[in-house]
Amino acid sequence: MLASLRTKRPIVHCITNHVVSNFQANGLLALGASPVMGEAYEEVEELAMLADALSLNIGTLNKLTLSSMLLAGKTANSKGIPIVLDPVGAGATAFRLSAIRQLIEDVNITVLRCNAGELAALAGVEWQAKGVDAGEGNVDVVELAKQMARKYKLIVAVTGEIDVVTDGEDVEEIPYGTPLMSFVTGMGCLLSGVVAAFLAISPGQPMVATVEALRFYAMCGEKVAPHSQAPGSFQIAFLDGLASKPQGNYDN
Amino acid sequence: MLASLRTKRPIVHCITNHVVSNFQANGLLALGASPVMGEAYEEVEELAMLADALSLNIGTLNKLTLSSMLLAGKTANSKGIPIVLDPVGAGATAFRLSAIRQLIEDVNITVLRCNAGELAALAGVEWQAKGVDAGEGNVDVVELAKQMARKYKLIVAVTGEIDVVTDGEDVEEIPYGTPLMSFVTGMGCLLSGVVAAFLAISPGQPMVATVEALRFYAMCGEKVAPHSQAPGSFQIAFLDGLASKPQGNYDN
Amino acid sequence: MLASLRTKRPIVHCITNHVVSNFQANGLLALGASPVMGEAYEEVEELAMLADALSLNIGTLNKLTLSSMLLAGKTANSKGIPIVLDPVGAGATAFRLSAIRQLIEDVNITVLRCNAGELAALAGVEWQAKGVDAGEGNVDVVELAKQMARKYKLIVAVTGEIDVVTDGEDVEEIPYGTPLMSFVTGMGCLLSGVVAAFLAISPGQPMVATVEALRFYAMCGEKVAPHSQAPGSFQIAFLDGLASKPQGNYDN
Repeated sequence: MLASLRTKRPIVHCITNHVVSNFQANGLLALGASPVMGEAYEEVEELAMLADALSLNIGTLNKLTLSSMLLAGKTANSKGIPIVLDPVGAGATAFRLSAIRQLIEDVNITVLRCNAGELAALAGVEWQAKGVDAGEGNVDVVELAKQMARKYKLIVAVTGEIDVVTDGEDVEEIPYGTPLMSFVTGMGCLLSGVVAAFLAISPGQPMVATVEALRFYAMCGEKVAPHSQAPGSFQIAFLDGLASKPQGNYDN
Repeated sequence: MLASLRTKRPIVHCITNHVVSNFQANGLLALGASPVMGEAYEEVEELAMLADALSLNIGTLNKLTLSSMLLAGKTANSKGIPIVLDPVGAGATAFRLSAIRQLIEDVNITVLRCNAGELAALAGVEWQAKGVDAGEGNVDVVELAKQMARKYKLIVAVTGEIDVVTDGEDVEEIPYGTPLMSFVTGMGCLLSGVVAAFLAISPGQPMVATVEALRFYAMCGEKVAPHSQAPGSFQIAFLDGLASKPQGNYDN
Repeated sequence: MLASLRTKRPIVHCITNHVVSNFQANGLLALGASPVMGEAYEEVEELAMLADALSLNIGTLNKLTLSSMLLAGKTANSKGIPIVLDPVGAGATAFRLSAIRQLIEDVNITVLRCNAGELAALAGVEWQAKGVDAGEGNVDVVELAKQMARKYKLIVAVTGEIDVVTDGEDVEEIPYGTPLMSFVTGMGCLLSGVVAAFLAISPGQPMVATVEALRFYAMCGEKVAPHSQAPGSFQIAFLDGLASKPQGNYDN
């Protein structure tokens, strides 16, 4: 799948936060995709029209970029290209929760890529709507992910020590990775862009593409970690790793 | 103090400029703190409420982010968490000077972290208010820092070849560091975030925490510089250095 | 010319996109220039007034930053300092094309620094104005660059496998570089800043300065590429390379 990605060089339109925009663009370039990073309302419709996938990230969202995301999302839907939504810090503020709810309701999202905390926050919103308090008890990530996937008819990809991908029926668990990944800002954000790139070259196979993207990404981290001293050098080695030719069954 | 920081993982809410936001977030993660980077007016109140410290940086300020800083600052004051203000390029424009003045007057700042040029510019504003021209003659950094600290009832931390920290009475000078630090953008900005993280775990001891933060930071630069060829590799080695276990009296 | 740059440390005011702002600032610092990165309408006039050159980049343009660019550009013209315009993704959207046209018409640009695709898009606008479709047939980069240079009375610097610099009459071709440069985001953006820095120390010699900047930059990439494994480490080595003392005729 990676070889195909590098041949096709899918254009991934990213509306993302300014903390990770450089890392996300560099990661997509290293991978072999072609990132386009514009976010002005005046141009996101055209940018989404020329893209093969759309990656939305609310990390430094404001009202203007939310409008741009909604417009780009609707455009991507009308064109039929896949959309990945990264609900960064979903539980932190009412503004983020409300924005994510609006995005999920107004736009057909292909993959929701989040961590367990964000998943719990998003599900908590639903629980509250049912009169149930959020955040109490241990969260069964797999069960919660399946519920979200079914409710919103999308794929949920939850990353953590063990990644979980589900379309509401099937569940895939991916055990690879390295703790260093949680000490580099934007690792999850970049992954969301990588998922978008894999989706772009896998029409009709979003579950397979998402699992492949997460497996490739986690194994890349696992592969380069031993050669890195700490987060700084790991970040650079990871970008190198994304660009390197993989061995075995990823290069097909 | 560093061991305590890594155990507590204080949340540092940063409203910062887009040039350094990635470096600042990565540096705080490497250090062991937990950065939160939102800046939309709609959510900064909630973000400040969940934070253990607030770090404000005017490097690419506009009217919107200034409003967000004022709101976050007042929230942080009401919650009683420390605030670090980094007056990037204070002397460059009237907009920056006016914004800093408003922030210092409307918000109780715990630490003003600046360089000598910014200090002189800020003091110059006061001089002008007293009919004295700014920028003429040599600046006595220690004396100026003490004046600013007393006038605004905050700690002033001026970084340079020798760092100066003062609360208006006591003065600490920190001679460590490396010239390479001035060839990486955002070194001062990240330091302001690091000071915020140290303040967060040292309630009631802002002077001690600020001095410790600056000493740790400067020694980290001094330690990794010999292994770096130039600014690019130094920047990465510095992030690694922030994450490494220190020797001696910092690990207590 | 590089030695002179490092002695004079020209101030380059950059209004740039948030994807590359960190890399552009770090690259200019490494080179020996002094970047200033503000973009708020309230302060760009003052920032341009204290600068030795202005670098404009439309990568994540919106209406606000466009206004700031026009104001900074007119200020730079009135002060007589050089301006470099980087029309990132010129062909991607009507908003970008319209913005570039406005910038070129309302401001005296010294150097237009672009790639072949952006050049074709810009020229295509002109072709359309003449009833000719854009994008058909092979583009003769040299001829197109000369036409643009003559039409707008500026220097056109087109980077690619072979860089082309022309003032509409003379043409210089620069064959150095490495394919790795196209796998790091912001390589072109940073180059535009570097051209601005070289222009700042070469009053009256914009063609010479532009050619020198592109040659230095491409040779820097060529020099460090063999020691880099992939885009991540290349990006860091390139920053180191910008800071290193060059050999031969660049150090004069």
